[in-house]
Amino acid sequence: MSTSESSSASPGARVTFTPHPQLPDVALLTLSNPGKLNAVSVAMWQRLREVFEGLAEREPALRAVIVRGEGGCFVSGGDIEEFPAFRFDQARLRHFHEQIVAPALEAMYRCDIPLVAQIERACVGGGLEIACQCDLRIAGAGSRFGAPIARLGFPMAPDELAGVARVAGLATAAEILLEARLLDAPTVLQRGLVHRVVADDAVAAEAEATARRIAAGAPRAARLNKRTLRLVASQFHFSEAQRSELAAYASGPDHREGITAFIEKRAPQFTGQ
Amino acid sequence: MSTSESSSASPGARVTFTPHPQLPDVALLTLSNPGKLNAVSVAMWQRLREVFEGLAEREPALRAVIVRGEGGCFVSGGDIEEFPAFRFDQARLRHFHEQIVAPALEAMYRCDIPLVAQIERACVGGGLEIACQCDLRIAGAGSRFGAPIARLGFPMAPDELAGVARVAGLATAAEILLEARLLDAPTVLQRGLVHRVVADDAVAAEAEATARRIAAGAPRAARLNKRTLRLVASQFHFSEAQRSELAAYASGPDHREGITAFIEKRAPQFTGQ
Amino acid sequence: MSTSESSSASPGARVTFTPHPQLPDVALLTLSNPGKLNAVSVAMWQRLREVFEGLAEREPALRAVIVRGEGGCFVSGGDIEEFPAFRFDQARLRHFHEQIVAPALEAMYRCDIPLVAQIERACVGGGLEIACQCDLRIAGAGSRFGAPIARLGFPMAPDELAGVARVAGLATAAEILLEARLLDAPTVLQRGLVHRVVADDAVAAEAEATARRIAAGAPRAARLNKRTLRLVASQFHFSEAQRSELAAYASGPDHREGITAFIEKRAPQFTGQ
Repeated sequence: MSTSESSSASPGARVTFTPHPQLPDVALLTLSNPGKLNAVSVAMWQRLREVFEGLAEREPALRAVIVRGEGGCFVSGGDIEEFPAFRFDQARLRHFHEQIVAPALEAMYRCDIPLVAQIERACVGGGLEIACQCDLRIAGAGSRFGAPIARLGFPMAPDELAGVARVAGLATAAEILLEARLLDAPTVLQRGLVHRVVADDAVAAEAEATARRIAAGAPRAARLNKRTLRLVASQFHFSEAQRSELAAYASGPDHREGITAFIEKRAPQFTGQ
Repeated sequence: MSTSESSSASPGARVTFTPHPQLPDVALLTLSNPGKLNAVSVAMWQRLREVFEGLAEREPALRAVIVRGEGGCFVSGGDIEEFPAFRFDQARLRHFHEQIVAPALEAMYRCDIPLVAQIERACVGGGLEIACQCDLRIAGAGSRFGAPIARLGFPMAPDELAGVARVAGLATAAEILLEARLLDAPTVLQRGLVHRVVADDAVAAEAEATARRIAAGAPRAARLNKRTLRLVASQFHFSEAQRSELAAYASGPDHREGITAFIEKRAPQFTGQ
Repeated sequence: MSTSESSSASPGARVTFTPHPQLPDVALLTLSNPGKLNAVSVAMWQRLREVFEGLAEREPALRAVIVRGEGGCFVSGGDIEEFPAFRFDQARLRHFHEQIVAPALEAMYRCDIPLVAQIERACVGGGLEIACQCDLRIAGAGSRFGAPIARLGFPMAPDELAGVARVAGLATAAEILLEARLLDAPTVLQRGLVHRVVADDAVAAEAEATARRIAAGAPRAARLNKRTLRLVASQFHFSEAQRSELAAYASGPDHREGITAFIEKRAPQFTGQ
C-alpha cells in the first residue's frame, strides 16, 4: 500500500492514506485541514474519491480502513470559504454536490473494505456525511454531531441526505436539519447513529481494536457481507426533475445571506424568499 | 394567518389554527374535544386536512407549526362513540380510513412547513398517528404511547400503520399493536419514537424553543429538506386488492364486540371468527 | 393442536410444538439439541418450516406462539458439525441456505400468528435469525447476540441477512458481522433489537405474560396487523445473478479453513484468497 496525499487551495488541506503503523493489512485515512478543524475542501473530496474508488481491487490484502481527522478532531464540515466561488449558481452548485461530493461518498459506500470511523470532537456537515458511509462509528464522549446548514441558508443535498438518513433514520435526520442543533454523544448513541461511545482519549485505541477484530475475520466474508448489506439497503435514485427542483434555491437570497453572514461573522437575516 | 375552527357532532370538538402568541411566523394547531381527552372526531379529521392541505402555499412566511391538544393532553385516540355509525360495514369503514383519516395524515406529511408535536399525557391511536406525521416530537415524562385497538377488535388501517411504522419502526409498531400496551416516555425515547423527553410542565416551553430554533433557519432550506426526506422515505402504495382484503374484518363479530363492549364499559369476548 | 417432533442425525436434536400448559390458544415451539446449546441442525430447520407453513390456517383458534430453546438457552447457531458435509460446494451450499434455512425463516415471517421469542443466554447465528422472524423479543439480562461467522470464514446468506437487518438495522447488522462480536442485552435493547430485557430467571414469565396480552386482543386484528406490517416492510428480492455471486465463496480456502479450525479447536489462519 502506498502513501499518498493531495493539497487544495487551502494551504495544508490534504487527505493521506497510509498503512497503519501497528496493524498489518489495515490502513489509515486521515483528513486534514489545519486551522479549520479539518473542513473538507473540494480537493479533499476529490482525493477521497480517488482513494476509495477501486480500493478493494487495488489492495486485495487490505482488511480494514480507519477513517479519522488529524489532530484529535474528526471533520467540522465543508470548507465554507470556498463556497461563494460556486454555490450561488444552480449549475455550479449541482456540479459540486453531484460531481464532487456525491461520488466521493458513493466511493466510500461502494468500497467492500470495512471502514471504521474514529470520531473525535466535531462530526459535522460533510464530516457527518463521511462518517455515515463508514460501517462502524466509534465516538468520543465529547463529540458533537449535526449539520446546522439551515443557518447558512441551504438544505442538505439529496444524495448526501439519503446517506445520512440511511444510518441516522428519518426522524433524527429531520431533527438535525430542521433544528440545526448539534447532538451530543449520548444522544447519537441512543439513536443508533454511532456504535460505541468511549472516553475522548480512548477513541483511537477503540477504533484500532475494532479494526483488529475485523481483520481477524475472513476478508472475503467481510466483503461479501458489505455487498449483501448494500443490496438489502436497496438503491434509491432521485429523478432529474427532482434533482433540479431541489437545487433551485442556489441563487435565492437566503442562501447567499447565510453564507455571506457566516463569513462576515454576523447573524443572518432570512426572509424565506 | 387567520384563526379558524370547526365543530363536529361532539359538542365542543374542534381544531383551531392560530398564530403563536409570542413567536412570529409560527402557528399553533390545537386539537380539542372536551371531556374525551381530545379524541379525534370525523369533523376534526376533516378540519385537520383543510388546515394542512396547501398550507405552505397559503402561508409563505410560516416557518413552523406546533401541534398540540387542548388542556395539557395531546390526543387519546379516535372518537369511539362515533364508531358504531360507520365501522361495521366495509365500504363505510374504508371510506372513513381512506377518505377521512388518511388524507388528513397525508396532508400533514406532505406539508413542507416543519411540524413540532407537543406531546402531553395521552398520545394514543389517532393521536399517535398524528404525532408520527410531525417532524419533531417533544414528550412529557408522564406521556403514554400506543394504539390498544386490538382490545376494540380491529387492526390499524394500512395507511395509518405505514405512517406509524415509518417513525416507530416495524418492531415497535408490532409491539404496540399486538400487545396493545401503552409504552412510557423513557421507552419511546429509547426507541427513537420521540426526540426529547422533558418534565411534564416543560413540554410546551421545549416545543416553543424547538419552533424558535427551526424559525431561526432559512425557511426555504427547511421546506426543501422536508421534501428530500419524503423522497428518501420513498413512496409505498397498497394495491386495491390489498386494501380490500385488509378491510374485510369490518362486518366480523370481534370488531363489533370490541367496540360495543368498550361503549358498554364491559370486557370484550373475542372468538377469532 | 397436536404435539409433534422430529429428530435429526444429531441424537436428541428436535423441534417440538405443543399447546401451552397454562394458556389456552397459545403454543410453545421448543428448539432442542442437547449438548450443543440447541444449535439448529438441517432436520430442525426442516421441521421449523413444517410447523409454521400453513399454521394459521391449520390452527384457526391459535392466538400466539412462544418460541424458545430447551433448558434455559435459546439457540447458539447452526449445527457446525454438519457443515463440512455440504458447505464447500456452491450448489450444495445454496441448496442449504435457499431451500432449507430461508424457507423455514420465511414460513415464520409469513405466519400470521404472533410469535414471541423467549431469549435466554445464547441468541447467536441461526438463533439470531430465528429471533428476528418473531414479532416480540423478550431477553434475559445475561443473553448474548451475534453471528461471529466471519471467524468461521463465511458471510451471512442474503435472505438471512435481510431478515436480521430488517429488525436490527443496517448499522447493527454490519457491526455484528464485520466485528464478529457478541452484543450484550443492554446494547441490543438500546438498538431496538429486543423489546424488553428482564432478569434471566424472569424471561419465561415475561414471555408468557406477553403471549397472554396478545391473546387478550382480537385474533383477526392481530393477523391483519401482521399482514399489513409485512406489506409496509415491502418485499425485497435478490436476483439469481446476485445470489450466485454471493455464494461463490463456498469453495474458497478461508471458508474451509474457518470451519475446519473450529472443529479442530484451533485458531483459523485466513488469507483472503
